[in-house]
Amino acid sequence: MAKIAICGYGTVGSGVAEVITENADNIARNAAEEVEIKYILDTREFPGDPFEKYIVHDFSIIEKDPEVSIVIETIGGTKIAYEFTKRALLAGKSVVTSNKELVATKGHELIAIAKKNNLNYLFEASVGGGIPIIRPITQCLAANKIDEVYGILNGTTNYILTEMIKNNASFDDALHQAQSNGYAELDPTADIEGLDAARKICILSDLCFGKHVNPADVRAEGIRGVTSADVEYAKRLNCKIKLLGRALRTGHDTATAYVAPHLVSKSSLLSNVDGVMNGIVVHGNALGNTMFYGAGAGKRPTASAVVADVIDAVKHVKARKYLDWDDAPAGYFTDSAYVASRWYVRAATSLQQIGWAFDKVNFVTYPGAAADEYAFATDVYDENTVRKLTSGMTVRSMFRILD
Amino acid sequence: MAKIAICGYGTVGSGVAEVITENADNIARNAAEEVEIKYILDTREFPGDPFEKYIVHDFSIIEKDPEVSIVIETIGGTKIAYEFTKRALLAGKSVVTSNKELVATKGHELIAIAKKNNLNYLFEASVGGGIPIIRPITQCLAANKIDEVYGILNGTTNYILTEMIKNNASFDDALHQAQSNGYAELDPTADIEGLDAARKICILSDLCFGKHVNPADVRAEGIRGVTSADVEYAKRLNCKIKLLGRALRTGHDTATAYVAPHLVSKSSLLSNVDGVMNGIVVHGNALGNTMFYGAGAGKRPTASAVVADVIDAVKHVKARKYLDWDDAPAGYFTDSAYVASRWYVRAATSLQQIGWAFDKVNFVTYPGAAADEYAFATDVYDENTVRKLTSGMTVRSMFRILD
Repeated sequence: MAKIAICGYGTVGSGVAEVITENADNIARNAAEEVEIKYILDTREFPGDPFEKYIVHDFSIIEKDPEVSIVIETIGGTKIAYEFTKRALLAGKSVVTSNKELVATKGHELIAIAKKNNLNYLFEASVGGGIPIIRPITQCLAANKIDEVYGILNGTTNYILTEMIKNNASFDDALHQAQSNGYAELDPTADIEGLDAARKICILSDLCFGKHVNPADVRAEGIRGVTSADVEYAKRLNCKIKLLGRALRTGHDTATAYVAPHLVSKSSLLSNVDGVMNGIVVHGNALGNTMFYGAGAGKRPTASAVVADVIDAVKHVKARKYLDWDDAPAGYFTDSAYVASRWYVRAATSLQQIGWAFDKVNFVTYPGAAADEYAFATDVYDENTVRKLTSGMTVRSMFRILD
Repeated sequence: MAKIAICGYGTVGSGVAEVITENADNIARNAAEEVEIKYILDTREFPGDPFEKYIVHDFSIIEKDPEVSIVIETIGGTKIAYEFTKRALLAGKSVVTSNKELVATKGHELIAIAKKNNLNYLFEASVGGGIPIIRPITQCLAANKIDEVYGILNGTTNYILTEMIKNNASFDDALHQAQSNGYAELDPTADIEGLDAARKICILSDLCFGKHVNPADVRAEGIRGVTSADVEYAKRLNCKIKLLGRALRTGHDTATAYVAPHLVSKSSLLSNVDGVMNGIVVHGNALGNTMFYGAGAGKRPTASAVVADVIDAVKHVKARKYLDWDDAPAGYFTDSAYVASRWYVRAATSLQQIGWAFDKVNFVTYPGAAADEYAFATDVYDENTVRKLTSGMTVRSMFRILD
């Protein structure tokens, strides 16, 4: 019998309690041991809640109870969550989390503490919600040298873009709709500005390439700049606009990562990853491309990933999972501006000026396009070059095209 | 240092030797131990081959060498492969395989032997080639009750269908092209008739639902009956024709599995799984739908999955992976004819007769359609009902529509 404590009884925490109770038989079969909730830590009371009797308010009760072997951290943020994770590990308990911010910023340190104490710090739910991605990368692709990983990592922004594409909604209307459907928070900044995706691409980069990337180093461009006009032009390029996080090796022991809207071809799998779903593509030197798709957020999907980690932790008590990365040497992280791609450009300018700047572009238009602008797809350039080439134009939008 | 033996130096076996050598550093890092080839068993000689020095012809050399801890079986078939796997396990060596036929028919017995000897019998490469699927199902989805699994499980038939859809090739031309590109064997029966997909859906069903399904019980309908006319009609239903293997729970402790061509909506992810690629969708009660995509066959992708298992076997010497299923009780496997779906029907008949048979259908046609037939999509019926309703018509094609 494995006894666990859930810290943070919000959406994910309550989902974990639900899934552990509902699927108890399956879980016991897979963990080869029954898994039982002993405590749920939260500052609030939950009168009438089915799990009310487990509620405690003092972390030290959990910390000091030797029966608790696994602590689930679903608090979020990097303050209390960090403190409790550290204390749990130092008290000899494995920790499972869905907290991407904490993993992206302090993961390496917390793994080191876990390692030293022969415990596990597991975080499958931190990227892609319920989608199995951390374990496939670290185990199933273990025979590969991974070159690149990218994908739709944020469900809120994907929902907004999908509404703009499918239902011709404006950005503001789509955001409002996401909020009233519970897909976007009241303060949606972390999603809209690409910060959430940046944390996730850091974790993926850490695991795929084995070196720590600091979220603060990652350039994140969100979707506030995507307009209905961009959506229409993109359609004529047979593309959809998707917010992608992307990390790639850029040379011998160098890598980069960034978050930005991209034009994605409609014939690609990612283009059909719509609504709140996530899709993550990994390229390995033996396997080629592989993609993982599923619900990137939500109570039960995320809980599903957390509980999978709990099962793994139960099976590996006192046996470490190999889940780790090194500190990055100086110069490891390079500027994503050097990554070359084709570009979509929408600018108020003249044909003549475009002709001066570019050898060859592919123009598109649509009924209702603004009369004072041109939209076109360029050849392959790095970001600095395309900025230089368009410097004489009033650029209204400029996004990479993923080929 | 872990020493391994590769049995069968064909496409997959030589790919394994290549990947183990090329990615030795990564593999050693992930396995926390170096992995070295000691023997390669084959009946043939390979003069000039880079791995020539490892070649042996007598399995007992491997069997009797206590240094060899892992045997890789890439022989195929169920005779010698079965014998060698059994002997290897009885000699205390874990076995890793890509042999879906053996896993589908004798997997349960071989796992039992492995279990008894505290060894592992691993087969990630047996389904979906390089796509991580066995491990995600057994580990990442361990917190879920899985209801259904389906997908494009055979690259050869998917290549042929893709050629028919994209390039208007006839079935025979597409098959010929697949053969000249090395995507189809000279005797393509196992692929074309759906037998290969049937083996794979059995393995998926075994793992997802925990009970053994005998490949001989699975109805397999291949793609020989798919014509260019079907492809054209399907387009007008906004669908592509894909050969799917599908397994689903049909009640309390009953399940079914089958292989058949389906009409798949173009807005679904599976519809963009083209060429030799595979895509597998798993539905869990907590997670919802998740999809795994990648190269379903090929030397290096398959080798990638085999070597991932080798790494796992190295890390779990004398510690069993939980990978197992039970014998099925009588009545567990039900007839797939009872599964209801919408249907695509192409038949030589009259409008009047269709009107008598069905309350409501959705007709489609295309320029060049045969004058003596109608094509339509029906409402939801099980197979027996739709056969009865169409019994007065000369049915030329009838496929399920996946909704």
